[in-house]
Amino acid sequence: MKQKRKNLVILGSTGSIGQNTLEVVRRQSARFRVVGLAAGRNIWLLTSQVEEFQPEVVAVESESLALELRKKVGKQVKIVYGESGYQTVASWKKADLVVSAMTGIAGLKPTLAALNSGKDLALANKETMVVAGALIRKMASQTGSRIIPVDSEHSGVFQCLRGNNKKQVKKIYLTASGGPFFRVPLEELPKKTLAEALKHPRWKMGRKVTIDSATMMNKGLELIEARWLFNLRPEQLEVLIHPQSIVHALVEFVDGSILAQLSQTDMKIPIQYALSFPERWESPLPYLSLAEIGSLEFYPVEEKRYPLFNLARRVLEAGRSFPVVLNAANEVAVEAFLEEEINFGEIFQVVEYCLEAHRPRYLKTLEEILETDRITRELARQFLRKRGKER
Amino acid sequence: MKQKRKNLVILGSTGSIGQNTLEVVRRQSARFRVVGLAAGRNIWLLTSQVEEFQPEVVAVESESLALELRKKVGKQVKIVYGESGYQTVASWKKADLVVSAMTGIAGLKPTLAALNSGKDLALANKETMVVAGALIRKMASQTGSRIIPVDSEHSGVFQCLRGNNKKQVKKIYLTASGGPFFRVPLEELPKKTLAEALKHPRWKMGRKVTIDSATMMNKGLELIEARWLFNLRPEQLEVLIHPQSIVHALVEFVDGSILAQLSQTDMKIPIQYALSFPERWESPLPYLSLAEIGSLEFYPVEEKRYPLFNLARRVLEAGRSFPVVLNAANEVAVEAFLEEEINFGEIFQVVEYCLEAHRPRYLKTLEEILETDRITRELARQFLRKRGKER
Repeated sequence: MKQKRKNLVILGSTGSIGQNTLEVVRRQSARFRVVGLAAGRNIWLLTSQVEEFQPEVVAVESESLALELRKKVGKQVKIVYGESGYQTVASWKKADLVVSAMTGIAGLKPTLAALNSGKDLALANKETMVVAGALIRKMASQTGSRIIPVDSEHSGVFQCLRGNNKKQVKKIYLTASGGPFFRVPLEELPKKTLAEALKHPRWKMGRKVTIDSATMMNKGLELIEARWLFNLRPEQLEVLIHPQSIVHALVEFVDGSILAQLSQTDMKIPIQYALSFPERWESPLPYLSLAEIGSLEFYPVEEKRYPLFNLARRVLEAGRSFPVVLNAANEVAVEAFLEEEINFGEIFQVVEYCLEAHRPRYLKTLEEILETDRITRELARQFLRKRGKER
Repeated sequence: MKQKRKNLVILGSTGSIGQNTLEVVRRQSARFRVVGLAAGRNIWLLTSQVEEFQPEVVAVESESLALELRKKVGKQVKIVYGESGYQTVASWKKADLVVSAMTGIAGLKPTLAALNSGKDLALANKETMVVAGALIRKMASQTGSRIIPVDSEHSGVFQCLRGNNKKQVKKIYLTASGGPFFRVPLEELPKKTLAEALKHPRWKMGRKVTIDSATMMNKGLELIEARWLFNLRPEQLEVLIHPQSIVHALVEFVDGSILAQLSQTDMKIPIQYALSFPERWESPLPYLSLAEIGSLEFYPVEEKRYPLFNLARRVLEAGRSFPVVLNAANEVAVEAFLEEEINFGEIFQVVEYCLEAHRPRYLKTLEEILETDRITRELARQFLRKRGKER
């Protein structure tokens, strides 16, 4: 029986998740048709993607980039740009499934546009759930959109929950590799360089996520994401350090039984699952051999090593507008670290400063969320400028 | 909302699984009513079970045991005995779920009687599936009985499969602790004593199963059981040594993703799951802490250490009447070892002798199965007698 092809839109097609998604599509080309792509500024890569996948519509960041792309690709492709362009692609009529893989808060509006038009969503942009979880749950339940997580940890939870009753879940555990500084002496941490922080021991990911993994802010954001994705209480969410990154998540049920999801550390596995759901398709990746791996280790999270994770944990419990502040301050701080304007230990200081200055409230609309995000970024930048002058 | 109580029959109530089942029932007393019990010769324990749970019917092995029990318990309990007695209890009209936990081939006829009368089955008697898997699958599909495994490994597979499509299973892995002789020098193995073989490092089980665990015949029988329970091909079935006995089973899917089931090593967990299925109920057992356990290790099965496992693996592939021979010869040999008539290494020799002497055929009826079983036992006993005289 020939199945209907799924029409895909990929938001963030030139990023790490976007490229991996297209790699999965290449291997499963009979099952998909890419109808829309959205990227930022990487016109060179986007051009080759447009030539290969022949989407109907493409969005880029600005008018000038749109004009640049126009010169390089065929006339049959519609090119749009900016915020409204991204929303056009995200809600493209023919799309069945939208892969949301833009980095940071930039992914929020297009993701909401996709949900608002009733598309199923393969969600890789964790910031979306972190800052607007309540709004997104509400919108998805109104339009009937399904949200399938792409993050390996959340995909793991999602897979373990299938066929089980969520009311019988006691806890979920997301695993963390511990990042490149898991065994570094604590006193050396503040001075760690950008190059050292970018050397992730297990996963090949984008630069922002790699730094968040070194501070373990990544895992904090993932806990907040999980809270909304799976509708759980903060005290049901835990993290375990697992340096091998083979077990991605565990779900503990009230009867004392635990289900865990394991796989090679290759993002193509959870991406393909999100695209194939509710099916599973053959994968050309090498299978996992536990007898070869030998040992899977688990450790509790050391509080002093990951102060940003502790902040995130407190934000998870405090709720309200705090997650927006956490995310915005962290984005500004990591950006500054990536530009080598601050050292590794100062990322924490920026985020802590913004959280302490914040007066929490309930954010009900997209506008309120974006306003809190904007104000926090300004505050974080002020703090950084002041810090710069003091030097 | 008040749920209807499940009416339980427990075949083998005085054995290890039977006692654990009654312990689960004690904790969940509002959910169950025990309507029938069947035991062998342990009248002392059976009497106290009858007094506590007030079943409607009880079966014992012989008429004299029935008379003995009659003097000890109230008149309202019906007492039956022997083969027909066991079948009466197994097909008791009011029963909703029959727990099949008699040891060895003795469990086969009552189990078939339960299925034949359309009861759901919580299956702990692995011999049943090993010797009569095809027959049982056929009967269950005709009567609509559900078979829920009780063995921790098969319960693990069962839990991992829920909500997934079996066609997308690539392999399943059952774990084995490796038994008490996992790290013993190979040359010392044949001379291991009964007391040493009975010291299982992880599980508290009956004596027969504990010896089967030391030889790893247990895991071989479990593979054959799994083949029928989950309708898989021999090449889809694997065993991994996992000394911590925390991970009970893993299911590998075609997309490279693996689901695993973990829990404390306490049989009450899979027993409760079989009784609560498709629900899960709160359990008073301590939860598992992976951070405390620290490390989960996996090893391939060392062929020279577990020759009986290799025989079982070959029997799994050869099929036909071989599993009946494997099981019968092993029961006789383990019995002789438990009576200290033979040494540890000779268990293998008995089983190998019977398999080599056997001419395989397809067994279509219960009678053919029981006949092959009987002939094999005779042959095994002959071999033992001859061996005894040679000494």
